[in-house]
Amino acid sequence: MARSNSYHVCVVGLGSMGMGAARSCIAAGLQTFGSDLNPVAREALAGAGAVAVDADARGFADRLDAVLLLVVNAAQCKAVLFGEDALAARLRPGTAVMVSATISAADAKEIAVGLAEHGLLMLDAPVSGGAAKAAAGEMTVMAAGSREAFDKLRPVLDAVAGKVYEIGEEIGLGATVKIIHQLLAGVHIAAGAEAMALAARAGIPLDTMYEVVTNAAGNSWMFENRMKHVVDGDYTPKSAVDIFVKDLRLVTETALSLGFPLPLASTAYTMFANASNAGYGKEDDAAVIKTFAGIQLPGVKEK
Amino acid sequence: MARSNSYHVCVVGLGSMGMGAARSCIAAGLQTFGSDLNPVAREALAGAGAVAVDADARGFADRLDAVLLLVVNAAQCKAVLFGEDALAARLRPGTAVMVSATISAADAKEIAVGLAEHGLLMLDAPVSGGAAKAAAGEMTVMAAGSREAFDKLRPVLDAVAGKVYEIGEEIGLGATVKIIHQLLAGVHIAAGAEAMALAARAGIPLDTMYEVVTNAAGNSWMFENRMKHVVDGDYTPKSAVDIFVKDLRLVTETALSLGFPLPLASTAYTMFANASNAGYGKEDDAAVIKTFAGIQLPGVKEK
Repeated sequence: MARSNSYHVCVVGLGSMGMGAARSCIAAGLQTFGSDLNPVAREALAGAGAVAVDADARGFADRLDAVLLLVVNAAQCKAVLFGEDALAARLRPGTAVMVSATISAADAKEIAVGLAEHGLLMLDAPVSGGAAKAAAGEMTVMAAGSREAFDKLRPVLDAVAGKVYEIGEEIGLGATVKIIHQLLAGVHIAAGAEAMALAARAGIPLDTMYEVVTNAAGNSWMFENRMKHVVDGDYTPKSAVDIFVKDLRLVTETALSLGFPLPLASTAYTMFANASNAGYGKEDDAAVIKTFAGIQLPGVKEK
Repeated sequence: MARSNSYHVCVVGLGSMGMGAARSCIAAGLQTFGSDLNPVAREALAGAGAVAVDADARGFADRLDAVLLLVVNAAQCKAVLFGEDALAARLRPGTAVMVSATISAADAKEIAVGLAEHGLLMLDAPVSGGAAKAAAGEMTVMAAGSREAFDKLRPVLDAVAGKVYEIGEEIGLGATVKIIHQLLAGVHIAAGAEAMALAARAGIPLDTMYEVVTNAAGNSWMFENRMKHVVDGDYTPKSAVDIFVKDLRLVTETALSLGFPLPLASTAYTMFANASNAGYGKEDDAAVIKTFAGIQLPGVKEK
């Protein structure tokens, strides 16, 4: 295995997750490159100690041992790797690509086939944990791929992950585990909104309701994190409604492809899609509560 | 306020919650009585240091400062207090009755009226936390009632509760908070079952899926607690499917009385009712997963 100070990795996609992962790679002593269309993000990473940053990663492709893809969806993964400025064509054979966007199993398999044509390894490796965990190098990674892919990406996994779950060898299993995780995350946000909406209707102070639930068996990670935004009346997006429209669509498509019913997740998809269509798509995902009519929600608190 | 060694309380209903609460009262130095139709439960509490136990609490009613009702539902509350062997008629005026069953706000108000006719105080005080918290004297209590009722029951609350939320003065608010809490608990169990069923369908090992979720943002208290039973193939009831048929019915009735839609909770009610009708009513509530057809679930593990 390469010594970490000679290991070269490029993080493509410097949003909150990608930026945290890239900084964790730098902190771990990896030679870290960054790529994003947003110049502000590129400058931030350059200031944090990246070897180089560019809107187009092809310029340093031939120096890389690994690429970590942290873009938003499958279309962006495919555009970066195989589009007009195809990165895959410039990477050295044997380079490992860790695909960490939330995508379908079918898309993961399609990308793996495309990478194999260039002699590239793939790890199907979605992540969870949010921006704070990413910044701390403690993301949860649910990964599937060959032993060779795991071995080649070990320095990156060590740098960015608190936990790595090795689901299996078959590409697509990582994607599926992430999608099932998102089923729970999405249903829990929607259920939190439904419960808080009912509390508002019943005249229960929402801060009290929040306190009770977060100290009892009805709590969820998402309730505790997102319903605080409702209590505070602050819908500044940490993660937007439209992310869960996308993710619950993936959940629903996965279930359709397996011929399997999902009574709760399909209902939650309906709630998020309705929230987006009502104009709340760019607000924090807790804004799904705004589709409940006939209630008075807390406004923004005075600072 | 009475010194604790002269404070007399009777716990009516010695199931897992009531037994824990009664033992906590004994541990706190209260003169503790117990009542239950089940002789095994009565003997257990007698052995743990109760002053007296009986199937019928009326025998020691005139010595009591407080009654803690931990029976299953509103019908049992009313039968104990106002039925053929009405306890309310034997309690001294000013005795406080803490009604901790999960009941509707309407039933709580009806019981308060009945108690007031006998000059008795009522605290509308449902609890949460499960058997382990009850045994440790650390239940979560969500209570509504007069200052007088809170004051009179303070020694009991100190003995049995880790947290006491004072929701307000109006009887029914405690019941409503508990019902909204149960909305979340029930939806979270059903969502956990749905996610694990999809994982089984997709060929994901359920122990891996459980590990991933419990270490990521898709976790809930109920997922972590109940889906372990699915992984272990053990449906020995800790809390039965029929409890959530009852509680999600209360949720649904509460929403109907407020003219409010609950897309997820009404779906979850459907899932639990279907599980009960399929013959799983007395199994652990995680057995709601058994209504998903076309999957292979883990069997009981070898010990």
